[in-house]
Amino acid sequence: MKKAAMREKMLASVRTRISHSGVNAIRARDVALDCGCAVGVIYNIFEDLEDLILTVSGEYFAELDTLIASHAGYLGEETAEENMMRLARAYYEYARDNPREWGAIFYFRIDMALHIPEWHGKYMPRLLGYIERPIETLAPNTSKSEVNRLSRTIFSSMHGLCALSLKGYRSGVNEKEMAKSIEFLVQGFCAQISREAKQLQSA
Amino acid sequence: MKKAAMREKMLASVRTRISHSGVNAIRARDVALDCGCAVGVIYNIFEDLEDLILTVSGEYFAELDTLIASHAGYLGEETAEENMMRLARAYYEYARDNPREWGAIFYFRIDMALHIPEWHGKYMPRLLGYIERPIETLAPNTSKSEVNRLSRTIFSSMHGLCALSLKGYRSGVNEKEMAKSIEFLVQGFCAQISREAKQLQSA
Repeated sequence: MKKAAMREKMLASVRTRISHSGVNAIRARDVALDCGCAVGVIYNIFEDLEDLILTVSGEYFAELDTLIASHAGYLGEETAEENMMRLARAYYEYARDNPREWGAIFYFRIDMALHIPEWHGKYMPRLLGYIERPIETLAPNTSKSEVNRLSRTIFSSMHGLCALSLKGYRSGVNEKEMAKSIEFLVQGFCAQISREAKQLQSA
Repeated sequence: MKKAAMREKMLASVRTRISHSGVNAIRARDVALDCGCAVGVIYNIFEDLEDLILTVSGEYFAELDTLIASHAGYLGEETAEENMMRLARAYYEYARDNPREWGAIFYFRIDMALHIPEWHGKYMPRLLGYIERPIETLAPNTSKSEVNRLSRTIFSSMHGLCALSLKGYRSGVNEKEMAKSIEFLVQGFCAQISREAKQLQSA
């Protein structure tokens, strides 16, 4: 089998395994079995198993990016708040409907956080960028770095809300009540951004 | 050595090891070495290594509880918002100054989330309770279950903000700017609670 075809086969094996049992259950031996090759063949194509998994994780991040991007534009008479609400709901729904893929993006090798691979470096600023646009609409005179800090604050909060709920923590919000909690957060964020922007203007 | 004394020695060994290298680095062999006993002695006293670690994790949760409780009262002329701000800051500072102890409370065996041990069952509602009091002040006519949902929403957001920042994720807020982000969240939450309470009253 040609190298490119084998590469695709390995990526498909990892995708299937993630969607069935999550990213932490992946073993090189099983991937080799799926692909009908020796374990060593993996290391001819990828640096190591982690590199293979991270490649798939990058594919998921690209898919999440496409989904979120489709909710990011100002369509019709949508306000900044309505837009941010759609982004937040889309993020939650992706995490809820694809928990293992979401886990592969955000929870694979949590201790690697300080050595973030290249693909992550590209997608995270884009994800934050979708939140920055409605913030800029609500607070047009705010500096770029301040808008970026606000987007991180909002992303972290939404991510925490989703993570604690979907992982079934007792500290999380019940799945049935998530819609209300997302509304509470987004309305609160947007009102607070407008309030701070007005204070800045009158100062 | 008497059983009770050996138990204390094992707990002390785990505490030291968590504060040096984190909860995931703990091995039964090392604990036995620290205590000058055979590995089997651990299993005479604790059900398994996990049980020993969870006992220490419960001690940390008790310490966090004491700290947060000391910030929970309405002192002097403090408003509900000021009180919630103090709670949020105290939580962040505990996590920042005791990252491994905080990790042992919230990140030990993340996959055990659905089989939460008893000690967790006692402390988490208390932690939420401290947030519920200022919420009740801001929204006195809100039902208990609604106040509880709001406390979970706020806790999840604050926890996410702390976690992404302290773990050094690119999606997190820079440590130097955390004070501003905590203020933004708490002010936004409190204003939104008051707003929803007014809507409820006029409805």
